[in-house]
Amino acid sequence: MKAIVKAGPGPGLVVRDVPKPACGPADVLIKVHHAGVCGTDLHIADWDAWAQGRIKPPVTLGHEFAGEIVAVGSAVRGEFEPGQVVTAEGHIICGHCLQCRTGNGHICRKTSIIGVDRNGAFAEYHVMPASNVMRLDGIPTEIGAIMDPIGNAVHTVLTAEIAGAVVLVLGCGPIGCFAVGIARAAGAKAVIAVDVNPKRIGLAKAMGATKALHAQHDDLAGAVLELSDGNGADVVCEMSGAPSALHDAFRLVRYGGRVQLLGIPSGEIPVNLATEIIFKGITVYGVIGRRMYETWHQMFRFLRSGLFDPRPVITHRFPLEQIDDALAAIRGGDAGKVILSIGS
Amino acid sequence: MKAIVKAGPGPGLVVRDVPKPACGPADVLIKVHHAGVCGTDLHIADWDAWAQGRIKPPVTLGHEFAGEIVAVGSAVRGEFEPGQVVTAEGHIICGHCLQCRTGNGHICRKTSIIGVDRNGAFAEYHVMPASNVMRLDGIPTEIGAIMDPIGNAVHTVLTAEIAGAVVLVLGCGPIGCFAVGIARAAGAKAVIAVDVNPKRIGLAKAMGATKALHAQHDDLAGAVLELSDGNGADVVCEMSGAPSALHDAFRLVRYGGRVQLLGIPSGEIPVNLATEIIFKGITVYGVIGRRMYETWHQMFRFLRSGLFDPRPVITHRFPLEQIDDALAAIRGGDAGKVILSIGS
Amino acid sequence: MKAIVKAGPGPGLVVRDVPKPACGPADVLIKVHHAGVCGTDLHIADWDAWAQGRIKPPVTLGHEFAGEIVAVGSAVRGEFEPGQVVTAEGHIICGHCLQCRTGNGHICRKTSIIGVDRNGAFAEYHVMPASNVMRLDGIPTEIGAIMDPIGNAVHTVLTAEIAGAVVLVLGCGPIGCFAVGIARAAGAKAVIAVDVNPKRIGLAKAMGATKALHAQHDDLAGAVLELSDGNGADVVCEMSGAPSALHDAFRLVRYGGRVQLLGIPSGEIPVNLATEIIFKGITVYGVIGRRMYETWHQMFRFLRSGLFDPRPVITHRFPLEQIDDALAAIRGGDAGKVILSIGS
Amino acid sequence: MKAIVKAGPGPGLVVRDVPKPACGPADVLIKVHHAGVCGTDLHIADWDAWAQGRIKPPVTLGHEFAGEIVAVGSAVRGEFEPGQVVTAEGHIICGHCLQCRTGNGHICRKTSIIGVDRNGAFAEYHVMPASNVMRLDGIPTEIGAIMDPIGNAVHTVLTAEIAGAVVLVLGCGPIGCFAVGIARAAGAKAVIAVDVNPKRIGLAKAMGATKALHAQHDDLAGAVLELSDGNGADVVCEMSGAPSALHDAFRLVRYGGRVQLLGIPSGEIPVNLATEIIFKGITVYGVIGRRMYETWHQMFRFLRSGLFDPRPVITHRFPLEQIDDALAAIRGGDAGKVILSIGS
Repeated sequence: MKAIVKAGPGPGLVVRDVPKPACGPADVLIKVHHAGVCGTDLHIADWDAWAQGRIKPPVTLGHEFAGEIVAVGSAVRGEFEPGQVVTAEGHIICGHCLQCRTGNGHICRKTSIIGVDRNGAFAEYHVMPASNVMRLDGIPTEIGAIMDPIGNAVHTVLTAEIAGAVVLVLGCGPIGCFAVGIARAAGAKAVIAVDVNPKRIGLAKAMGATKALHAQHDDLAGAVLELSDGNGADVVCEMSGAPSALHDAFRLVRYGGRVQLLGIPSGEIPVNLATEIIFKGITVYGVIGRRMYETWHQMFRFLRSGLFDPRPVITHRFPLEQIDDALAAIRGGDAGKVILSIGS
Repeated sequence: MKAIVKAGPGPGLVVRDVPKPACGPADVLIKVHHAGVCGTDLHIADWDAWAQGRIKPPVTLGHEFAGEIVAVGSAVRGEFEPGQVVTAEGHIICGHCLQCRTGNGHICRKTSIIGVDRNGAFAEYHVMPASNVMRLDGIPTEIGAIMDPIGNAVHTVLTAEIAGAVVLVLGCGPIGCFAVGIARAAGAKAVIAVDVNPKRIGLAKAMGATKALHAQHDDLAGAVLELSDGNGADVVCEMSGAPSALHDAFRLVRYGGRVQLLGIPSGEIPVNLATEIIFKGITVYGVIGRRMYETWHQMFRFLRSGLFDPRPVITHRFPLEQIDDALAAIRGGDAGKVILSIGS
Repeated sequence: MKAIVKAGPGPGLVVRDVPKPACGPADVLIKVHHAGVCGTDLHIADWDAWAQGRIKPPVTLGHEFAGEIVAVGSAVRGEFEPGQVVTAEGHIICGHCLQCRTGNGHICRKTSIIGVDRNGAFAEYHVMPASNVMRLDGIPTEIGAIMDPIGNAVHTVLTAEIAGAVVLVLGCGPIGCFAVGIARAAGAKAVIAVDVNPKRIGLAKAMGATKALHAQHDDLAGAVLELSDGNGADVVCEMSGAPSALHDAFRLVRYGGRVQLLGIPSGEIPVNLATEIIFKGITVYGVIGRRMYETWHQMFRFLRSGLFDPRPVITHRFPLEQIDDALAAIRGGDAGKVILSIGS
Repeated sequence: MKAIVKAGPGPGLVVRDVPKPACGPADVLIKVHHAGVCGTDLHIADWDAWAQGRIKPPVTLGHEFAGEIVAVGSAVRGEFEPGQVVTAEGHIICGHCLQCRTGNGHICRKTSIIGVDRNGAFAEYHVMPASNVMRLDGIPTEIGAIMDPIGNAVHTVLTAEIAGAVVLVLGCGPIGCFAVGIARAAGAKAVIAVDVNPKRIGLAKAMGATKALHAQHDDLAGAVLELSDGNGADVVCEMSGAPSALHDAFRLVRYGGRVQLLGIPSGEIPVNLATEIIFKGITVYGVIGRRMYETWHQMFRFLRSGLFDPRPVITHRFPLEQIDDALAAIRGGDAGKVILSIGS
């Protein structure tokens, strides 16, 4: 079958034939329809420092996907059958540790991520442990294919109290844009979205931002204070990883508010813990992955009911073979979500 | 009456006669029995950069005290009468703002602190708004006088889940030592206390630390991992403000754990948000003051029941006139809690 | 000034002249514009068993109102001035007890309710302690006058997790209808409203109910199971007090769900604790009043942002003199919210 | 192998030879050392109405046990090996439903309980799905054998806020006595235990009850009010199922407190929802089973650290063959926990 592979050390990806994976007794084999391309894929393609430390080529990329079940392992109990349309949580966890056993599998220290630590879903077929597979039950595979990053946004937003809140979203990449839509659907009083890219600012507006601002040209503090009666934002979702955004987060959150950190800064950032965290009495939460599986059930509710529609964020669609074009679109900075059409 | 006063800009304090304060209609006038000396008092005496920016001399110092009611304002409803032994919350808050109106008065932006922003309790008499006064009902004034820092410890410890938890306390000044005792009383599985001063390490041990370690000479990670089955600390209370301790906090907290920040670092500290917070999925909480008045009710329950006894932490007692000796004891680094005996 | 008074024991109310109240040093005097009529007023008018045990005539009725400040007490700090348009929390609490001091003033055991335990707001002027007064800042007095029951609904709904939830509202009186609207604004996946009165079912529909059903003629279980993928309702708001509705609540809530009890049944109801509560692992919460003052801040956010509009629930408006017509409208069972226009 | 079997409809149990169970690929086979006898076993033995509706003979009884691994299924990953000493969660859950997928497996609607719905552990060997097995790592099998009911107590107590709380435990059977010890270990200010049997009152005292009272002869309200400064109990654990105890729970809990319901009443109990729940603003929680697996991790922490020792509650020990004597001891009403010694 065809797959997008990091074939060896060094920059670049190749599209080549690889063996179709076997379906183990506890697995489900899936014919991939759509897959989402993520910044992580760009890091791997570009073979940056992080990729050099983590990736062991050859490996098939891709951790966001949806498709149709074509085989179900002999030991899989009841829930699945061929023909069902599904997606999957890409974090494969140990199941035994303190985190896994207490509802925090998303931070299992033995997590193996598809498309990173093991073969992924940028391929015609992909095999997953059945316990990670989620039935779409009517959600289109184009949306199912991006439930991984939607889940990051849902995890970020819904671990704060949103009903009636003023929410500040810093960074309007796909996850930031999804966060805007989720916050609106969950009853935020106002959502202020911030980026430096006009296209992304436009996407945030399309997803329902009350105000979508330019980080450098607009008066963030003025907008936040006006919409919050001078208090500051109740909740800040930091989704850019930019040092300046981090300081904006601490500066613009209200006393007693909450800062959700999802964007990954490169290296250390100087933080004034006294004035930025302690004296303001705030709570800071590190967001990684999706809560397994509360976040998924929350997503199904928002997506199936129509409360949340992620499609305005999808800006580019390519066939599998055009992975380089897909990566170029992301590299350009103007893209929302980029999707690969693989089969159907 | 006699009082300890910062008389003007520049280092030093004076003991001098000042007018006895008047008791307004909403106030309670208190004859002070004991008062606690705090690092804040040292900053004011030494006239450091913080003090220069905040203090407007002349001002009577002292924000930790207990004593006996000698007069009750005409508009004070029912609860108080002369002869009662009381202490008080030293943060006088606006009562109107979002924080005050939603149970977060401890982070009111208009807080005025006694002994800092207005006259304090290092004096023979002190007047307080009745709403800040708390009846001791049998707790000795020597303990009542230090319920402000005990409250910092209770706020820090009891806003985390402690029953069965492995708790790491970084910094064994008085508040750190109180935190050790509160964590034990609240059912911590183990409390590991860390400092660089052998006397303070001894105080932490006396307060019930499972292990009391030297930050540089002992193997912190080894101790934490051994007591936590290799997981790391469930809760870290950072009470030193030292940059190295902050990184120890993030390094030794378990995935999904909680870091409570109370110690005030001077200036910025470089933090690797990705590895120290985000990838570990932890929660960080900035602790300031005492929750008004949940923390006080929690303290009364721990103190009156005998679950918690702070007295091993009291290492020095001086009369009012010897404030310079009291400050010297704190400056020396070996002191636990230092108390002034004023009246009785 | 004119007021609606329960003049003595026995049924009936009178409209008569009473002295204009004096404004004490800690009070605010308000010229009443609008007032809401509540089932409680009907109980007092009809002099039922509850009223006979609680009311000490003569007393001016009315606990829901809004109007304009005409005088401010000498000891009231900063926030208020004549001309401001305000409403007020009608529960006057002691301020000293465990509940008051820990953010639970709504269940202070010494609560005195205006229009019940002391003179109320069905009058041309009404005096309130300043600490209970809330500025409307642009909310019309017709809406301000019904923030007491809107607050009951907000307290009921927002103490549960609503984002993405299937919410069942049993009883579509005014508070039930407000609950429907609040649940929708807070991101409920679906809201199923139930009553036996077709007019009220219509009001619930107008407030955004996904389905508005007749308790006896429609298939409640079918609707709940269909909208919840067979799980049952995540949250049930019981707002009728009817024994059959209570059992519906326990029957239709999902395993691990939450039942909020606001409707007041008359007398005891047989409950099968094993099958209705314990085996289902549910949580039951008794809702009384409004959280002071979190609920009020939540209301301001929903009302001022336009996320929630209560006006479709207002079905009747009468001048003060027509209190008997107002009560008759409520007695008829078809009314939504009934409002008195008093001044302007 | 020998096993205690409900052989057919009607009262009585038999000790007879049954086939040793096979170890499936996902299972662990355990040689049983000790097992706990529970009131449920008595219901099955006596063939009461509940048993007639639930039990399908023949079935081996026993859901509380500990022993040594003798075989590990071929598909079981890493954690287990022969020779390890283990116990197990007796609720075998579906793993797929909303409850299972969101950390609430203890209320999975498809739960199959060992010794009730399938063969149990009153036998020389018992087979369990590996995912339900827990390593004892030094906890003796006599204690491991009763972690099921200890877990009920931990679930009941630690889902409330205990540090500094006044806790009322109604019913001093084994679970009630364990609850007393856990509440003390978790920092309760005071624990008041209540029963009608003097032996059980003595066991509660031995487990650390501040006061252990007779439900009919002692002044419960007086004791609760004295220890709670007149407020009432912060937390009530209802562990008797007696109607009078339920009303005591609602009467003695403080305004805003929490009632945890674990005792199973027979049939309906009339409840005055207005005065017992709503006007007091309390929360009621139905406790079933143990949280999978938070409760287990909490137990390991309390047991391994020595914070909690359940052994004073163990009053009777019998060999497998004397099951009738074991049941008689429970029937007598004086027993604490009754244990079967099976192998070693």
